[in-house]
Amino acid sequence: MKYCSCCGSPVSLKIPAGDNRERHVCDHCGQIHYQNPRIISGCLPVHGDKVLLCRRAIEPRYGYWTLPAGYMENGETTEEAALRETREEARAEVVLRQLYTLTSIIHVNQVQLIYLADLPEPRFGSSEETLETRLFSEEEIPWDRLAFTTIRNALRFYFADRAGKEPEFPLRHIALSPEQDDLVLIR
Amino acid sequence: MKYCSCCGSPVSLKIPAGDNRERHVCDHCGQIHYQNPRIISGCLPVHGDKVLLCRRAIEPRYGYWTLPAGYMENGETTEEAALRETREEARAEVVLRQLYTLTSIIHVNQVQLIYLADLPEPRFGSSEETLETRLFSEEEIPWDRLAFTTIRNALRFYFADRAGKEPEFPLRHIALSPEQDDLVLIR
Repeated sequence: MKYCSCCGSPVSLKIPAGDNRERHVCDHCGQIHYQNPRIISGCLPVHGDKVLLCRRAIEPRYGYWTLPAGYMENGETTEEAALRETREEARAEVVLRQLYTLTSIIHVNQVQLIYLADLPEPRFGSSEETLETRLFSEEEIPWDRLAFTTIRNALRFYFADRAGKEPEFPLRHIALSPEQDDLVLIR
Repeated sequence: MKYCSCCGSPVSLKIPAGDNRERHVCDHCGQIHYQNPRIISGCLPVHGDKVLLCRRAIEPRYGYWTLPAGYMENGETTEEAALRETREEARAEVVLRQLYTLTSIIHVNQVQLIYLADLPEPRFGSSEETLETRLFSEEEIPWDRLAFTTIRNALRFYFADRAGKEPEFPLRHIALSPEQDDLVLIR
């Protein structure tokens, strides 16, 4: 950020009165421009013993597999965002079961929410953002072709939790730092 | 938003190629400025059979009671944000137990996370943002002097869940729209 979005004048980094960290402050009108983490909301769609993955048609991670998820928009709930992204990216209609992973991705200022969801009918498709969409059994998961650490974590937790005698799916709180994010291609 | 924060030129509302909703787009450099919901993270601190509330020293809702909570900053996790706000607003050190409420406040583009937390020692205080901080038993809660619907909901759920024979505190997913928000001062 170089210019004030209210008046177009240059901004400077300053600690505003009563604050304790640097913000972009307009040199002319005084407006303080806060920058905060953004929310990514998505689904882990389950159909029988399989899960639905999408192969990305966009950068970053073009060609890698992911769960349907994307930025939450103004004017919607976190659940609505998850359903909308699943519709847009996987052309699938799911029923949300519960919030399953909440990941603070510290170095990119994102919080990712993944909902466990049921895909009642095996209907899905590709889209502008997705080269192909497919159901995978646990054995078929392309662990070395997953797009993001957060996706690998959600899938890993899911198969582990599902393997329990009386399966339970507790909410998983995860903090990702850059070091951990290097694991993106390792199971 | 009237001006581009990258180059200072005027922006216009347009639907970018491949998108399906209006964004602020720079007329000069083409930068697309996305606007997304912000996260508020905070705590419901419990000490014995009492909960800790703060009386606001700032607008909005000056003088009304609230739970310690505030905007999540870049570079921290949702849990760190909750602990920091509790430290800043209530001068209290708590131990997080679990995520308890997740509220999408649709009309103001916020997602509020409230963590159930233990306050091991009854040490707390006022701050620049807080006129006074105090422990309340259920009977003492100032229901008609609570600052926000989200706070009232968290407290209401907490006392209801606590009253169970074997208390359980499931994550509460809440969607708040303007109509429901009118209930702010009604129990």
